[in-house]
Amino acid sequence: MDNHYDIGIVGAGPAGLSAAFTVRWRNRSVFLADGRPEMGSLQRAPHVSNYLGLPPMPGTKLRERFLAQVWDAGVTIHRLTVKGVYPENGSFALQAGDDLVYVGAVVLATGAPPRDLLPGEERLLGAGVSYCASCDGPLFKGKRVAAVLAGEDPHEVLYLAELAERVYLFTPPDNIHPPFPSNIEPIPESLQAVTGSEHVEGVQLASGKTLPVEGVFFFTGRLPMAQLVPGLDTAGDAVEVNLRMATAVPGVFAAGDITGHPYQVARSVGQGQVAALEALSYMGR
Amino acid sequence: MDNHYDIGIVGAGPAGLSAAFTVRWRNRSVFLADGRPEMGSLQRAPHVSNYLGLPPMPGTKLRERFLAQVWDAGVTIHRLTVKGVYPENGSFALQAGDDLVYVGAVVLATGAPPRDLLPGEERLLGAGVSYCASCDGPLFKGKRVAAVLAGEDPHEVLYLAELAERVYLFTPPDNIHPPFPSNIEPIPESLQAVTGSEHVEGVQLASGKTLPVEGVFFFTGRLPMAQLVPGLDTAGDAVEVNLRMATAVPGVFAAGDITGHPYQVARSVGQGQVAALEALSYMGR
Repeated sequence: MDNHYDIGIVGAGPAGLSAAFTVRWRNRSVFLADGRPEMGSLQRAPHVSNYLGLPPMPGTKLRERFLAQVWDAGVTIHRLTVKGVYPENGSFALQAGDDLVYVGAVVLATGAPPRDLLPGEERLLGAGVSYCASCDGPLFKGKRVAAVLAGEDPHEVLYLAELAERVYLFTPPDNIHPPFPSNIEPIPESLQAVTGSEHVEGVQLASGKTLPVEGVFFFTGRLPMAQLVPGLDTAGDAVEVNLRMATAVPGVFAAGDITGHPYQVARSVGQGQVAALEALSYMGR
Repeated sequence: MDNHYDIGIVGAGPAGLSAAFTVRWRNRSVFLADGRPEMGSLQRAPHVSNYLGLPPMPGTKLRERFLAQVWDAGVTIHRLTVKGVYPENGSFALQAGDDLVYVGAVVLATGAPPRDLLPGEERLLGAGVSYCASCDGPLFKGKRVAAVLAGEDPHEVLYLAELAERVYLFTPPDNIHPPFPSNIEPIPESLQAVTGSEHVEGVQLASGKTLPVEGVFFFTGRLPMAQLVPGLDTAGDAVEVNLRMATAVPGVFAAGDITGHPYQVARSVGQGQVAALEALSYMGR
């Protein structure tokens, strides 16, 4: 995979697809990544009856139309979770899966927050809480960690198990396929909170029991992106943007449900278009 | 015509149509007015190739699709120029043609500014400059006025002629159809500036000549709306809005090209949708 693009887009829902389409329409190169492109909210909409220009149809059908058009425009959707966005002299490096991809500007279009943050998760981010085994795994060599896996491929957990002394695994039962390394211990309870004062000291279970760990890894698909780009302003769950879809970080734009309510397809498409045009302007293109 | 509606929308381009469609989709009543619905920028677009979900097509065709859907939803487009928006105890009266229409909240979607303002026009608004003969005509009884008519129906000019001593008429030659009252004098030059210190004293012509008048009426279709709603913030030509499309005036929202660049159909449709939903929220609906 070539690893330099004009615009990097995180998330392939209506906002991300619209942004990618717009970049191609302006004849610039785009890197579009989504770790779980089939898990977005549009596909789960039984019926979209308010997208101007098209008759009512199931969300899956509307998405197929969008995809066909975006593919036609030459866009590839990379099935990779973007785990970090690192500013570098006015442009950016994206950690996409295990690769680094370099882009001139970024559009965040990861959708509505996939879940509420757990107590302690945000406070202890970077102090034991991580979303990326390949980035932070080595810090936990020989230590105990917890891993939360939501339907994703287990490869990050297996990598953790190579480093850590023990991995407490929180995942749906149908997601557990032995054999796996003996230091992975599935926990048949849900994780309720991350505990610790200065750094992670444990995880609290639904039963009230606490497991002592030094690290907690969340592999839960769409990430709380607001916390992965240093310097973003947020209001509640939403990333704050202005009318040009610019976030507080120069060169980083956001579009769609990540920017807050109302969650609507036409809003996301329009915002994605603006974010892409403004990202190209930021690059002077 | 019934004259009470939930939401009033000024302008029937992509943003206004999207807003009207959204209000109906939420099963609320809408008053949609446009003095020149066939003169918008979408119709003049030879080709729209970047509206996600639809193949490339002429602007006229895309507009036909939008119109069919909006009509289906029960929206009527009233061919009336909205000449004023007057706040009244948290709701609004719209001066639409010669009628007053009462609405709970307003969406301004009048498009990009139709023309640059003339020197003196903004400064002398309300001091002799007017966009509404039925509102302000009686102030000029027995006086001399200038009227600028751009392809609209002449009925406001005829009304002025009943009141004023003399009406200097600035309009394209093919717009002049005698007989008309003898106190209407077509001027075969363009109007360059409005002059006067505290109030209008004259109009300056392309030749440099000045005609003494006490009033100047502009009947030029889409109005510089920013100046007709007291208290709107503007930045250059654009009405300032936040991400919820709220202007500085509570209950007044704006969407589409009136909010500035980039001028794009998908952006306008998305903004119209948001403006309508937020206008309904403002009303508590």
